Amino acid sequence: MMGEFELIQRFFTRPAPPDAQGVVLGIGDDCALLQPAPGMQLAISSDMLVCGRHFFADVDPRALGHKALAVNLSDLAACGARPLAFTLALALPEADEAWLEPFSQGLLALADEHGCALVGGDTTQGPLNICITVFGEVPARSGGAGVPTQALLRSGARPGDDVYVSGTLGDARLALEALQGRILLPSEVLTPARARLEWPTPRVALGLALRGIASAAADVSDGLLGDLGHILERSGVGATLDTTFAMHLLAAYADYTGASALFEQEIGEKKGLQCVLSGGDDYELVFTAPVAQRAAVHTAAQASGTPVACIGQIEATPGLRLMDAQGALRVNDFASFDHFA
Amino acid sequence: MMGEFELIQRFFTRPAPPDAQGVVLGIGDDCALLQPAPGMQLAISSDMLVCGRHFFADVDPRALGHKALAVNLSDLAACGARPLAFTLALALPEADEAWLEPFSQGLLALADEHGCALVGGDTTQGPLNICITVFGEVPARSGGAGVPTQALLRSGARPGDDVYVSGTLGDARLALEALQGRILLPSEVLTPARARLEWPTPRVALGLALRGIASAAADVSDGLLGDLGHILERSGVGATLDTTFAMHLLAAYADYTGASALFEQEIGEKKGLQCVLSGGDDYELVFTAPVAQRAAVHTAAQASGTPVACIGQIEATPGLRLMDAQGALRVNDFASFDHFA
Repeated sequence: MMGEFELIQRFFTRPAPPDAQGVVLGIGDDCALLQPAPGMQLAISSDMLVCGRHFFADVDPRALGHKALAVNLSDLAACGARPLAFTLALALPEADEAWLEPFSQGLLALADEHGCALVGGDTTQGPLNICITVFGEVPARSGGAGVPTQALLRSGARPGDDVYVSGTLGDARLALEALQGRILLPSEVLTPARARLEWPTPRVALGLALRGIASAAADVSDGLLGDLGHILERSGVGATLDTTFAMHLLAAYADYTGASALFEQEIGEKKGLQCVLSGGDDYELVFTAPVAQRAAVHTAAQASGTPVACIGQIEATPGLRLMDAQGALRVNDFASFDHFA
Repeated sequence: MMGEFELIQRFFTRPAPPDAQGVVLGIGDDCALLQPAPGMQLAISSDMLVCGRHFFADVDPRALGHKALAVNLSDLAACGARPLAFTLALALPEADEAWLEPFSQGLLALADEHGCALVGGDTTQGPLNICITVFGEVPARSGGAGVPTQALLRSGARPGDDVYVSGTLGDARLALEALQGRILLPSEVLTPARARLEWPTPRVALGLALRGIASAAADVSDGLLGDLGHILERSGVGATLDTTFAMHLLAAYADYTGASALFEQEIGEKKGLQCVLSGGDDYELVFTAPVAQRAAVHTAAQASGTPVACIGQIEATPGLRLMDAQGALRVNDFASFDHFA
């Protein structure tokens, strides 16, 4: 039987990637040591993934390793922080090499892609649980009011700002419903949707490119309306969203041959809208920017190779309003995900 | 039913303690932001506590909150780092207020004691699992060979150095064996031993005082021999320990009226030695220091109000040797704790 230290040595200890800036000391001591460059702050986020709640027990361990880090990198992206390093705490029912090897490969491949070094953590026996804490670097800001940082925060949205989302939305939730047997998707639609659920792409390059341009940002983990709601609440503003955009953000909608009619017949527009507006696990960015930054937003999107779409406007009146194609307000009955509700 | 955000708001969101240096932004955004003072590095450690493995399901939640942070602060202590902040990721079977309230009180009371701010984390539904990542500050070091830090590392022990431990050892393990019904302890012995198991004291002040004095340090979490073994391995040295000291490090030994004879009759010296040498969960420091620093070590111990005892010497020959009162080597058959062995 493999012991705890052998497990760490075999699957998780490597020389730091050559571009691992800021890492003074990695795995093997009581603490890791990081030193941000002068004038830089450390952005920190922590996510815990539980078997049966965030992933199925039989998920491809390589995809799980990828996703466990991706959801954390997504929080750095939402702050416009550059990834530096992460810790991994892992509870495992048993030290199963056939699981650990692909898990660590999926995890470390994404880490390498972002120059993000694994610097420490913990392993223990217990029900499968993956807790990653990630560290990124963002410049401090001197002068002016508010938090002295150049990080993108949830609190900076102002009336008149545009509201944007990156990429596509809702496919992860659509795949989840299909995997749970609640809807039926043809395989040419399920396969890419499932990839969105299991292999999310953290929008790190876009987040970095939006620094100094976006007024507020969050990542879409619990659903668009819920995560935008956090921005509105922290900024003390409201918004109206144009829901005519919505179905076109769902990649699966376009994947149906003959698109809208067939989709509506098989899935229903109500379900499609629900996936787009309140489906979780997309890991896109929802962000706001002043109208004067429209050109800069599109330059940032192009430079980072990430599509963005303007979906509404920030308003002084609190609350989140949805508008249909006829310009009429529709009832917002889309609940976002809550782990205890 | 309380939702995830209400749970965080009610039990874990507070203004940062007034002396929360280095915290630019706490709970409520995608990331927390820390900024170490110029010339300082961030020491980082992460520990995961699993129900049934690290604590009993019916443990006092206040004690559990205390211990979950204490074991992390103990890692900072072993590095000589000053606590700044921590994140908490928590999987809970249900949002039980009668559990959450004392848990958060035990956690935050220890956090306040160390000026350590809760800056973020995650809550989710799942089998009870507590993962804390802690951040401390330690000065960088310029010039000289090796890791450019003033942190105490495991790798600095040199032949001729003294080996020390702080406080008392083995009582936590003795209490664990009693609670598991494997030995019987009179209540006047069990009560203080159980307090050692459930309310460990991280040796933060001693760790800080030993900076520039100790050559290497680790905290005793898996057992003295195992944790000293990590120092020996990382430093490329060996050690001989004088086991005649050992029984006197066990507080329970002195707690027996009529001490040694009665203890040996009821528990056995073999069991006592096993608790001292390989019992985990003590969260004392094991450290080494050059002979020339003996006076400085005792000054540091006094200044931090922490007893220390010299228990052996570092030698060039690899391996860990135990010596009895007659000066004879004894077999080292004390295994340290391994979560997967």
